[in-house]
Amino acid sequence: MSVIDELFQANHRYATARHPHRLPLPPARKVAIVTCMDARIDPAGILSLAEGDAHVIRNAGGRAAEALRSLVISQRLLGTRAVAVIHHTDCGMLTFSNQQLTTQVKAELGADASGIDFLPFSDLEASVIEDVRLLTDSPLLEPQTPIRGFIYDVHSGRLTEVGIPAMAASGT
Amino acid sequence: MSVIDELFQANHRYATARHPHRLPLPPARKVAIVTCMDARIDPAGILSLAEGDAHVIRNAGGRAAEALRSLVISQRLLGTRAVAVIHHTDCGMLTFSNQQLTTQVKAELGADASGIDFLPFSDLEASVIEDVRLLTDSPLLEPQTPIRGFIYDVHSGRLTEVGIPAMAASGT
Repeated sequence: MSVIDELFQANHRYATARHPHRLPLPPARKVAIVTCMDARIDPAGILSLAEGDAHVIRNAGGRAAEALRSLVISQRLLGTRAVAVIHHTDCGMLTFSNQQLTTQVKAELGADASGIDFLPFSDLEASVIEDVRLLTDSPLLEPQTPIRGFIYDVHSGRLTEVGIPAMAASGT
Repeated sequence: MSVIDELFQANHRYATARHPHRLPLPPARKVAIVTCMDARIDPAGILSLAEGDAHVIRNAGGRAAEALRSLVISQRLLGTRAVAVIHHTDCGMLTFSNQQLTTQVKAELGADASGIDFLPFSDLEASVIEDVRLLTDSPLLEPQTPIRGFIYDVHSGRLTEVGIPAMAASGT
């Protein structure tokens, strides 16, 4: 059986066992999580999130630039008022450059990916700082939103908060 | 206590209780899930995914156009070979237009969001078809990748597969 058929059958068992219930559309705890697509991260598990608690935005790396569209919708239409950015150890984004991946796509698929910034990074902590700053500085998010950054250790399961250094004043 | 402090403390309890373990970086079941950030969707729960099984990409609406960067990384660097696109009932993306949200951002924040396509949709099934086709037609994904589309009912917890009509031949 194909993996998607397996998932579909697993959902059938899930839905058959579940008591139907209605939860409101806006997240109960008014928080949005931005994290990586990595298979070893279960946001609900590691943060004890219940169904209905939080928006969970995931992409390769947990990059904020790509999450911004979703965060504007989350804040303006659905009332979230805090953001946690969570990157993680042993992330695939640490293993390549745009040029390497573009070359690989060309070699393996014959396709041109040169127009895409794949948003890789070479320093995990720096990537968290960059992403928290990007969101903190965005005029598209609610002023004074608590935006905090973390590194998740996929081995231990533990989050560590990343301190965000103050920006140097411009011109200095 | 702030919600992010609550999540951080919940993680401390989680990590303290967890036996550290190492899983490989590539997803064991070689599948990527694309779905919405909606708080009522727990992908691991509804699909019986174990830690390490699958890439999970989530954004407002579960839109494929925004997921494409992550899917290229997922396939080329981490070996996934199937994609499930899952949109859902009662989705916030059905409730606004780009113009409405841009006007709201301007009124509430004084910021200009006119350059952003927020990727809303007015027909749930059509949005799934559009996104499956976008990925099926992309030269950046592995040819012959099984790419299937579903609607998740947030009340019943049940997935329904969306049939993807054949495209009309060009010129007809």
